[in-house]
Amino acid sequence: MQGRSPSDVIKPEVRRLSAYTLKHVKADVKLDQNENPYELPQDLKEEVARRVLARPWGRYPEFVPASTTKALSAYTGWPEDGILIGNGSNELILAGLSVILGSGRTAVIPQPTFTLYKLLSSVFQSQVVAAPLIENGSAFSFDVDALEAASRDAAITVICSPNNPTGNLLDAASLERILAATSGLVFVDEAYFEFCGETALALLPEHRNLVVLRTFSKAMSMAGLRFGYMMAHPEIAKEIHKAKLPYNVNVFTLAAAEAVLARPDIMRDAIRTLVAERERLITEVRQRPGVEAFESKANFFLLRTPHKARDLFEALYAEGVLVRDVSSYPMLDRILRVSAGKPEENDRFLSAFDHALKNLSLSEGVAS
Amino acid sequence: MQGRSPSDVIKPEVRRLSAYTLKHVKADVKLDQNENPYELPQDLKEEVARRVLARPWGRYPEFVPASTTKALSAYTGWPEDGILIGNGSNELILAGLSVILGSGRTAVIPQPTFTLYKLLSSVFQSQVVAAPLIENGSAFSFDVDALEAASRDAAITVICSPNNPTGNLLDAASLERILAATSGLVFVDEAYFEFCGETALALLPEHRNLVVLRTFSKAMSMAGLRFGYMMAHPEIAKEIHKAKLPYNVNVFTLAAAEAVLARPDIMRDAIRTLVAERERLITEVRQRPGVEAFESKANFFLLRTPHKARDLFEALYAEGVLVRDVSSYPMLDRILRVSAGKPEENDRFLSAFDHALKNLSLSEGVAS
Repeated sequence: MQGRSPSDVIKPEVRRLSAYTLKHVKADVKLDQNENPYELPQDLKEEVARRVLARPWGRYPEFVPASTTKALSAYTGWPEDGILIGNGSNELILAGLSVILGSGRTAVIPQPTFTLYKLLSSVFQSQVVAAPLIENGSAFSFDVDALEAASRDAAITVICSPNNPTGNLLDAASLERILAATSGLVFVDEAYFEFCGETALALLPEHRNLVVLRTFSKAMSMAGLRFGYMMAHPEIAKEIHKAKLPYNVNVFTLAAAEAVLARPDIMRDAIRTLVAERERLITEVRQRPGVEAFESKANFFLLRTPHKARDLFEALYAEGVLVRDVSSYPMLDRILRVSAGKPEENDRFLSAFDHALKNLSLSEGVAS
Repeated sequence: MQGRSPSDVIKPEVRRLSAYTLKHVKADVKLDQNENPYELPQDLKEEVARRVLARPWGRYPEFVPASTTKALSAYTGWPEDGILIGNGSNELILAGLSVILGSGRTAVIPQPTFTLYKLLSSVFQSQVVAAPLIENGSAFSFDVDALEAASRDAAITVICSPNNPTGNLLDAASLERILAATSGLVFVDEAYFEFCGETALALLPEHRNLVVLRTFSKAMSMAGLRFGYMMAHPEIAKEIHKAKLPYNVNVFTLAAAEAVLARPDIMRDAIRTLVAERERLITEVRQRPGVEAFESKANFFLLRTPHKARDLFEALYAEGVLVRDVSSYPMLDRILRVSAGKPEENDRFLSAFDHALKNLSLSEGVAS
């Protein structure tokens, strides 16, 4: 080793990164990870467990899990040879970026957005062009002109729609402008699509440079199981498939995904409730003096108060309510992200929120 | 899109790759994937299913699964902050290579070996220096002089020990020579370590540029569940962790891994049987005229016959026995890889092998 530190061989772009991390904190009311608080029905879970116990664990999953891909094709209407499945959509993001990005290539990524895109782009030594969102009144929006211009020479342009953590959508006409302008691929990450029903899927047949990502971690209540899928034209799917690890989705998750796809409406009522609760929470918090809440098409929303986000976070946590402090993201000073929970959880949040606002105002000497 | 094909944006190194693929073929006797034919005990599997049914599926796994890492630390004696867990060791190979490799960097990889290393090195646009094995008599061995020389300026040197598909080990003294020579990291992939007990772990405390990979897919009979782990010095583990996807191991696999780690000897008898069966198979096939079998420390071995590997593969498959045709690998012309199965499966293999040899000799007009 010639006296150097072994970590010197790590690429400098990686050494400079802070790790994506999240301290796992337990809480009575968990509104921090945009999870679905409604579980899949017990009978479905037991059916999955039975199916898994009936098959060998010592044998690899199928190389291409044909029955799962077929069920996704029936569910989405997109052909099987244009569908890839992953251990969460994260894995497909990684595979997709890995075949496109490298030294000398550019990724256009709105800011703020889901942090994994920028982190992996850095690992792959690519240039990242940040396209800041626009804050207008009570909503964030994408800067479509900036995205269109920046994407021209980019290898990849990433659009999370609805965007995490801001909750805004990119409309189809704007997406078409970007698709027409870029010489690269456009990844549309629809992790929260089931909460709004808006999807880029209809543009896929006519746009061979579009890639659509989905997950079962949010609306489908399978965050613990890790399942995501990607839809693209077969010529693109074939290339991304080369970098996707073989046997990446385990037999348990495959069984669960197939069970859900056999009953695709199973979370419909839960989704309706969460959307209604998100709207109730937004309406409620806006009635508190000095509090802004931003429109959202997902199962979470952003709120801004006059107080330091960390102080409010801690005050809520002291009452057993866990939300996400996103104030270190660009543009999100004094902002927290709150996932919509069950009605009773949201009541607990509102009560803790009122307490916290009152106490913080008192301790800061601000008249409330 | 300016009239180009969207797949033009895929990196040329990726477009040139053939995908790692395996046609999933059903067979009565499956000796093609180095799986463990002995399942985990039913009571353990049922306990895992019960534990999984008792926890929410809609919630993400812990960010760092502390109890699993702690159990692995107790099992291996290596500290927790030097252990990473993955969705199979494949995922840790990917994360490890991604923080080290890129344009202008070199990976030294013996040939033939597990194909994923070369494939991912190409995805990451690195130069791959192949270090051919040496065939001497009835065994393959690593070319340690060549590895030592080539690794000098390499960012990573990969050693699968026992090597797949050849079954040979790298001894500790040779590994130390490479560790001392290289300015980069050395990944020792011990996917088959439980079948021989030989490990580089004892060298880890003194060698900060060593990374050891293990899997539960082989001896531990969890190929369908996907679980692997990596051991490295904490300063290296920290960097690789940055590129590892969050929540990568699902709650079911975590529960199964912990159940196995609570009973670490659970596959001991199965492993002993498979090792004894591998030796029996090698001894048996060597008695067939014109057949060579190579020494192995894993749960598989290579055999060479006078016939075309594809013809022999097909003849075996016609009798319900599936093995791996590895004849397209460098140096492995006319060679098949056979995983040791249960005794009765191996009897089926031997019987089919004798039939096949006889028929192929007849059809080729060779006196047998």
